Amino acid sequence: MALMEISVMPLGTGQTGVGEYVADLIKYLKKNEIPHILTDMGTVLEGDVDQLLTVAKVLHELPFQKNVWRVVTHIYIDDRRDKTVHLSDKIRAVTERLS
Amino acid sequence: MALMEISVMPLGTGQTGVGEYVADLIKYLKKNEIPHILTDMGTVLEGDVDQLLTVAKVLHELPFQKNVWRVVTHIYIDDRRDKTVHLSDKIRAVTERLS
Amino acid sequence: MALMEISVMPLGTGQTGVGEYVADLIKYLKKNEIPHILTDMGTVLEGDVDQLLTVAKVLHELPFQKNVWRVVTHIYIDDRRDKTVHLSDKIRAVTERLS
Amino acid sequence: MALMEISVMPLGTGQTGVGEYVADLIKYLKKNEIPHILTDMGTVLEGDVDQLLTVAKVLHELPFQKNVWRVVTHIYIDDRRDKTVHLSDKIRAVTERLS
Repeated sequence: MALMEISVMPLGTGQTGVGEYVADLIKYLKKNEIPHILTDMGTVLEGDVDQLLTVAKVLHELPFQKNVWRVVTHIYIDDRRDKTVHLSDKIRAVTERLS
Repeated sequence: MALMEISVMPLGTGQTGVGEYVADLIKYLKKNEIPHILTDMGTVLEGDVDQLLTVAKVLHELPFQKNVWRVVTHIYIDDRRDKTVHLSDKIRAVTERLS
Repeated sequence: MALMEISVMPLGTGQTGVGEYVADLIKYLKKNEIPHILTDMGTVLEGDVDQLLTVAKVLHELPFQKNVWRVVTHIYIDDRRDKTVHLSDKIRAVTERLS
Repeated sequence: MALMEISVMPLGTGQTGVGEYVADLIKYLKKNEIPHILTDMGTVLEGDVDQLLTVAKVLHELPFQKNVWRVVTHIYIDDRRDKTVHLSDKIRAVTERLS
């Protein structure tokens, strides 16, 4: 079970804001009922790596449907096979250490 | 005003877990009253780039104080100068687009 | 046509070095005749995004075959659809600007 | 002794190409005689972490001098304290394993 953070960034749009593209990404995840957490710097998903990279491919394609010609995407996968990890588990574990 | 996500990862500890090191990082930020949000994949901070990279340096050093000999750190800075951006602003802006 | 940089890092091996795992990755790419450039910080490949993420999946799996229980993988895709980009093209373009 | 990969990306320029900005970055490094290797996906530097993050700050600022209002910068530091590491050392070590 793995967690993946993904950030999809269109280049050459002529606008400094990219909120429209992030909204498209979140709409896709909601519509397809894919668990996710939106952060200030990307979106975090859980699943096995095959599923996650399949979703990553779709999310990376989204801006190209809107007359964008260059997209840079950063993906960060953290994959543990010694135990099951779900969204927010790591945050909870660290918080418990602090108390 | 910029946002920075940072992930500090010790290598060669012989343990799959790194929660102890993330807890050290959060303790430092709390103690020094540096605004931050812990996510599943890193920690997000706000500030100007000078401040943020100064903090990044300190956070990167923390594991070396514990007999760790190799640390890999990923830093992602998003720096807008056309408007002020604080923690959670981008999440809020995207959420508004969805409603 | 896209370029992808990938870095696959095993955690909890008890060793600071990861050269063995990088060598496994390069062996796989050579054996399968997948064009690539090894850098100090990762490996750069060219292809379309589907192909690249399929390869990424395989490379991410490699350390798990060696009794590793946690792998963190960073993937950075730069995908232009307005022109064909091959390995070393960007380096060449920048170098020409400097002369 | 650490290695750092840095990628500095201007947003909202209205152009898909960013070669001009990468060239500015390399010019700065050459002028200041800072050892570096340009790759397809970023620039790799060597030094201690203090020095590297000081340079990172300067490189991140460069596009703002050219009427750019948003810059996203990715920094990846690999810092070993158990031995000295220079540019190309890791590539050489992996290549030796393959022969």
